[in-house]
Amino acid sequence: MKDFLDKNFLLETETAQMLYHEHASKMPIIDFHCHLSPEMVATDYRFRSITELWLGGDHYKWRAMRTNGVPERYCTGSDTSDWEKFQKWAETVPYTLRNPLYHWTHLELRTAFGINKILNPSTAREIFDECNEKLASPEYSARGLMRRYNVEIVCTTDDPADSLCHHIATRESGFEIKMLPAWRPDKAMAVEDSAAFKSYINKLGEAADIEIRHFADLVDALHRRHHFFAEMGCRLSDHGIEEFYADPYTESEINAIFGKLMDGNVLSDEERRKFKSAMMIVFAEMDADAGWAQQFHYGAIRDNNTRMFRLLGPDTGFDSIGEFNTAKQMARFLDRLDSRGKLAKTILYNLNPCANEVIATMLGNFQDGSVPGKIQFGSGWWFNDQKDGMERQMNSLSLLGLLSRFVGMVTDSRSFLSYPRHEYFRRTLCNLLGRDVERGEIPVQEMQRLCDMVEDISYRNAKAYFNF
Amino acid sequence: MKDFLDKNFLLETETAQMLYHEHASKMPIIDFHCHLSPEMVATDYRFRSITELWLGGDHYKWRAMRTNGVPERYCTGSDTSDWEKFQKWAETVPYTLRNPLYHWTHLELRTAFGINKILNPSTAREIFDECNEKLASPEYSARGLMRRYNVEIVCTTDDPADSLCHHIATRESGFEIKMLPAWRPDKAMAVEDSAAFKSYINKLGEAADIEIRHFADLVDALHRRHHFFAEMGCRLSDHGIEEFYADPYTESEINAIFGKLMDGNVLSDEERRKFKSAMMIVFAEMDADAGWAQQFHYGAIRDNNTRMFRLLGPDTGFDSIGEFNTAKQMARFLDRLDSRGKLAKTILYNLNPCANEVIATMLGNFQDGSVPGKIQFGSGWWFNDQKDGMERQMNSLSLLGLLSRFVGMVTDSRSFLSYPRHEYFRRTLCNLLGRDVERGEIPVQEMQRLCDMVEDISYRNAKAYFNF
Amino acid sequence: MKDFLDKNFLLETETAQMLYHEHASKMPIIDFHCHLSPEMVATDYRFRSITELWLGGDHYKWRAMRTNGVPERYCTGSDTSDWEKFQKWAETVPYTLRNPLYHWTHLELRTAFGINKILNPSTAREIFDECNEKLASPEYSARGLMRRYNVEIVCTTDDPADSLCHHIATRESGFEIKMLPAWRPDKAMAVEDSAAFKSYINKLGEAADIEIRHFADLVDALHRRHHFFAEMGCRLSDHGIEEFYADPYTESEINAIFGKLMDGNVLSDEERRKFKSAMMIVFAEMDADAGWAQQFHYGAIRDNNTRMFRLLGPDTGFDSIGEFNTAKQMARFLDRLDSRGKLAKTILYNLNPCANEVIATMLGNFQDGSVPGKIQFGSGWWFNDQKDGMERQMNSLSLLGLLSRFVGMVTDSRSFLSYPRHEYFRRTLCNLLGRDVERGEIPVQEMQRLCDMVEDISYRNAKAYFNF
Repeated sequence: MKDFLDKNFLLETETAQMLYHEHASKMPIIDFHCHLSPEMVATDYRFRSITELWLGGDHYKWRAMRTNGVPERYCTGSDTSDWEKFQKWAETVPYTLRNPLYHWTHLELRTAFGINKILNPSTAREIFDECNEKLASPEYSARGLMRRYNVEIVCTTDDPADSLCHHIATRESGFEIKMLPAWRPDKAMAVEDSAAFKSYINKLGEAADIEIRHFADLVDALHRRHHFFAEMGCRLSDHGIEEFYADPYTESEINAIFGKLMDGNVLSDEERRKFKSAMMIVFAEMDADAGWAQQFHYGAIRDNNTRMFRLLGPDTGFDSIGEFNTAKQMARFLDRLDSRGKLAKTILYNLNPCANEVIATMLGNFQDGSVPGKIQFGSGWWFNDQKDGMERQMNSLSLLGLLSRFVGMVTDSRSFLSYPRHEYFRRTLCNLLGRDVERGEIPVQEMQRLCDMVEDISYRNAKAYFNF
Repeated sequence: MKDFLDKNFLLETETAQMLYHEHASKMPIIDFHCHLSPEMVATDYRFRSITELWLGGDHYKWRAMRTNGVPERYCTGSDTSDWEKFQKWAETVPYTLRNPLYHWTHLELRTAFGINKILNPSTAREIFDECNEKLASPEYSARGLMRRYNVEIVCTTDDPADSLCHHIATRESGFEIKMLPAWRPDKAMAVEDSAAFKSYINKLGEAADIEIRHFADLVDALHRRHHFFAEMGCRLSDHGIEEFYADPYTESEINAIFGKLMDGNVLSDEERRKFKSAMMIVFAEMDADAGWAQQFHYGAIRDNNTRMFRLLGPDTGFDSIGEFNTAKQMARFLDRLDSRGKLAKTILYNLNPCANEVIATMLGNFQDGSVPGKIQFGSGWWFNDQKDGMERQMNSLSLLGLLSRFVGMVTDSRSFLSYPRHEYFRRTLCNLLGRDVERGEIPVQEMQRLCDMVEDISYRNAKAYFNF
Repeated sequence: MKDFLDKNFLLETETAQMLYHEHASKMPIIDFHCHLSPEMVATDYRFRSITELWLGGDHYKWRAMRTNGVPERYCTGSDTSDWEKFQKWAETVPYTLRNPLYHWTHLELRTAFGINKILNPSTAREIFDECNEKLASPEYSARGLMRRYNVEIVCTTDDPADSLCHHIATRESGFEIKMLPAWRPDKAMAVEDSAAFKSYINKLGEAADIEIRHFADLVDALHRRHHFFAEMGCRLSDHGIEEFYADPYTESEINAIFGKLMDGNVLSDEERRKFKSAMMIVFAEMDADAGWAQQFHYGAIRDNNTRMFRLLGPDTGFDSIGEFNTAKQMARFLDRLDSRGKLAKTILYNLNPCANEVIATMLGNFQDGSVPGKIQFGSGWWFNDQKDGMERQMNSLSLLGLLSRFVGMVTDSRSFLSYPRHEYFRRTLCNLLGRDVERGEIPVQEMQRLCDMVEDISYRNAKAYFNF
C-alpha cells in the first residue's frame, strides 16, 4: 500500500517516476490562463488568514460545503469569523474523499506550508494556526507564493476597457516573474442585457478615447485597445461563450442591430445570434492580424440559481455543464476564418467532456502545417480539471491528434495557491506515458523523445506557441 | 487467477475486501425504488417455478434471448412450457458472457438457492429441478425471499388512484419488513393519448371522491390522494419523463388546455409541453410541502417497436436510451421551485450515461445547506445498472460532488430475486474505495471515515434522507 | 517492462495470450467493409514505393503531418519526391506517440516487411530502401499482400452505376481470395447539389438501361442494378449518412420533389429530409427482399475546410466527429421497416462514441429471434478504430447486448497494408476476455465457449451472418 500523497503520488510505474522527477518537475510554470488579481500582484498582497486565501472566493469549496449541509453564512456570510468558516471547511473535508478538493487541499498544505497532516476536525485548529502564522511572514505574499512554485509567466484575464495599470506597475516594480495581460472582450458581445451592454460600450469608448455611435466605432475602439494590449505584452485572447455562433449576417444587419441595442431595445434570438456571430469574427481577425492565440471556453450554463444569483452575483458556485450540439457551428466559424486567411492559433476548451472527441477531431480540420499544433485542445477545464478529466482530455488528444504538441496545463484560478495543479497535471501525464512504456506500447528506444515530450508539454510547447 | 464469483468477487484489494466484508455486507437493505407487486407481498406469493420467477416479466432476459436468435414464443409465448422456456434461457446464458445478466444469474442462483453450478445447457435440467424444489418450500415465498436478503424497507411504485389496499393488508398482517408506497403520478400528465388521459382522470376523481371538471379539480384530487399516500407512510415520489419541461405558461392557458383535453382534442406540441411544465410544478410543490423526496427518471425512448407493442404492450423489452439536450430545462425547472421555496429533496436519474457530468454538476446549483446531499444523483439506472454503469455514476459523483452523501442503490426491479444487485453495488463501491487507498489516493488515517462512508452509502444515508 | 510490440503485445494476461495465439490468430480474415480499389486487385497492382503505399491516400497520416507543422506539399503535393515525403513522415512518427498511427506503422513494418526497427529520422533511409526493395518483388503486389495476411473474403464499396468489371475480371482470373462488391448508393440521395445529382441520375439510367424521368424510374433503375450486384455476389449494402431520416412523406410529394430536382431546383430543408427519408426506405426494402445486410455509417461532418476542399476534394483529412440527436429518428426508421416486414439484417456504426450506449440499446428493440445478432453494433469506426475506441465499442456491446454474436472487425481502408488492424482488434478482444477470466468475472468452466466466442467474433459470425 502506498502512502497518501507521497513522493510518487499518482506515479504507478518506475518510468512514470523517472519522467516526473527527472523531467516534468524541473520545468518552470507558464500559467497562460488564470484569473489572478493583477492588483494583488502589483501590491504584493498579504493574506489575513488561510480562510481568506482558501475560502475567500473559492466556489468549488462552497459547493462542497453546501452539499455537505453547511449553511450559507459559513460559506459566504459576513457574520462568521475566519475560524468558524475554516472549521466548517475542516468538517467538510473528510466528506470530500474521492473529490479533487481532497487532493488539492492536502497538496497545497504540503507544498505551500510544509504541513503533512490530514485536515479534519481534530487537526483543524493546529493547521489553521500554523498556516496563519506562516502567512504573516513576507515570503507568503502574493509574489512570494508565485516564487515558491517556480512560476515564470502568468497571463491574467482582462477586459479591453481595463487600464492595465497593475500590469504596468508590476512590470515597473522589477518583479522577476512576467505577468502579462490577456484580452477577454466578452462584455462587448454580452447583448442579453442591453442596459449593461450600453453602459459597457460607453466605458470602452472612454478607454479608447472614441465616441462609439455606430458599429464601426465599436470595432475601431476595440482595435485601439487590442493594439494597447499588444504593447503591454499581451499574446492571447480568451472568449467565454455558451456555444459557437456562425450564423449568416450582413454588415448592414449588424449596424442595424447595434443601433437597436444602443436605443435600449431587446434583441430577438436571431439578432442576438447574428450579432455574436459578427463579433466573433471581429475578435478573431484582430487576433490573427496581431499573431496572437485565441482561446474559446464554451459549454457552461451559468447562474442557474436565481435566488443565489441575486444574493451573491456571478461565479459563486451556481454554474454547471451544459449540453450543446455546436460542432457544425464551430467548424463553420473556423472555416470562415481559414477561408479568408485569418485563422489565428486557436485553443478550444469544452466543458462537457462528451465533446472531447468532437474537439480532438475538429483540430485536424484546420491544422495547416504553419505552426506545430496550431489548433489546440485545451487542458481539462473547470469541472474537468482533475485526474479523470485530465486523463480523458489527454487520451482523446493522443488518440485523435498529437499529444506531443500539446501546450499543456493552466490553473484558470483566482488563487495564488493553485499552482500544485500543474504538479498534479504533470504527474498524471507522466503516469499515462510511463504505463504505456511498461506495457510495451511505447518503445524504450524512444525514451529520449519521451523525456523531451514531457518537458515540452510541461513548459516548452507553451513558450514556443505563444512566442513568450 | 481468481475463482468465478468467489467470496472476493469484484474486490481487487485487501482494503476493498475489508470494507465489504466487515462493513457493507452487514448493512440491511433499504430498497427505496422498486416495482414489486404489492399484492404478491400482501398474499405472500408462492412461485410456480424458476421460470415464473426469472422469466415471467424480465425483459432484460427476453432481449438477450431474442438477440441470441430465440423465437418469441420461448420468451413471452403462452404455448411453451416453463421447462422449454428455461431451456432456451439456459442455452442463451453462455452467450451472455460479459453481460451483467451472466453475473445476476449466477449471483441469484448462489444467494437464493445455494447453487454454485454454472448455468448452461448441460446443467439446465438439474438447476431447473433444484430451484423448483426449493421454490415449493415456504421460505421461498415472496416474503421469504425478502427476509433472506435482510431487507428492511422497500418502496413500491404506485399510482395516485391506487387504493393501497395491499400495503394496508401487508402492514396489518404484521410483516416485519416495511413495505411503503411511492407516488408515481405519470398518468396525470400523459396527455399524448387524450382518451386514455380522460379515462384516467375519471378514475382518479373516483379515488379522490371529486368530480374533476376543471384543472383546479385535478389539482385538488391529487392533493387528496397525496395526503392519503402520506398517511400510508409514503415518503417519496417518482416521475418517468422523457425530458425536463420548464416552458412558460399561465394558469388560464393550463385551464384551457385541460378543457381541450377533456373534450377529447389532441394537443399541439406547444400545449403538450406547457401542460407537462405545469404538472411538474404541481407535483413538485406537493412533495415540497409534504417533506417528501422527489425522483426523476428521464431520458428513455419507449415502445420503439410498434409491431411488438401491439402484441405485448409496454415494458416488454423495446425501450432504449434516448438523446436529449435537457440541461437548461432541468435547471430552469429546479430554479422555479427553489425561487419560490418549494424545492423538495430531489434525486435525478439519467438513462444516457453521457449526461452523468451534467447531472453531477447540476446538483451543486441547488444544494442549499439544509440537508446533506439534498439534491442527489441517482444510482445507475436501468441499462446502467451494471458494474461499468455504477462505476461511471459513482466516479462522476465523486469527482463533481460528494460521494459520501450518496443515498445509494435501488433495484428498480419487478423481481423478488433482484436483491443481490445491492451486493453487486456494494462490492463495486468498496472496490473503488479500496483501490484509491492502496494507490495512496485516500489516506489510511481516514480509515474510520471510510468505513462509515461505506455503511452510510449502503444504508444510513437513505435512512436519514427519507426520514425512515 | 514488456518489449515494444512483442509477441504478447496488448495481451496482459495468460488467458488473453492463450486466446489470441491459439484461437484468434489462426482465423482467416473476412474484411466485409473496405475501400480497396477493385482495379488494383484485378490488375494485381505493383507499388512504386512505400511512399505510394503508405502516404498515397492516407489522410490519417496527412492530418498528423499537418498537425506536426509539415507543409502541405510534403503531404499531397506533386512537387516533392517519394523520399522527401517519406522523410517528413519519418520525422513526424516520433511525435505520434500514443496515437494509433504509431502502432499501425510499426505493426505494418513488422508483419508486411519483417522490419523490427523503430521508424524515426535516423532509421528513415534504411527502412525506406528496405521496403522499396521488397515492394519490387512479386509477392508484394496487391494480391500478394492480401495472401500474406490470410484474407479469405473482402467486400469493396461500389456505386450502383459501376460496371463491376474489375470484380468480374478478378473472379475470372481465378484469384483464390473472394472479392465481392458492396452496394453504396449514397449518390442516389445526394440532393444537396442538384446538378451533380442530375448528372448521376443520368449515369445510373445508362447503367440500368432505363431513361429515368420520374421517381418510379429511379426506383426501377436501382432495382435492376441491385439485382445485378446480387448476381455478382453482393451480400450487403452500405450507407453514409449524416444522421437518420424518418420524416413523414407521401409518394406524390416524393414524385414532386424528384421533378423539382430534375428541373435543377434547390430543395428546401424539409424537402431534402423527405426525399432522404423516402430513399432510405427504398434502399432498405431492396436489401430486405434480397436477404442482404445493410450497413449505416452516420455522424460525420465532412469537408469542413472549404479552402482545402477546393484544392484536394473530399476524403483528404478535413472531416470530423459531429453531434446529432438522432436516436428517435433511427428508431422510427427501423420501426417503419419492421412494421412492414422489411427490416433486413442491419449494422449500425456511429462516429461519435457518445452514441455507443444509444446504439447498443437500440439493437434490442429490433432483435426478432430470426437470426442471431440480426441487428449489429458495428466495430469502432474511423476515428474510433483504435484500442480505446474498440474497447469502448465492445464494452458497450457486452454490457447492453451480446458480444458473442458480434460480426467483428473491418478495416474500412483504402490500403492493402491495413490488415494488421484485424490483429490489433483480436488482441484487444482477447485482452478484455482474458482479464475478465483472471479477475473471476468469467468462469474457467466456460473456457471452451470462450475460445469458440473468440473464433466466432474473429471469423465465423461474419461468415454465417452474411451467408458467405
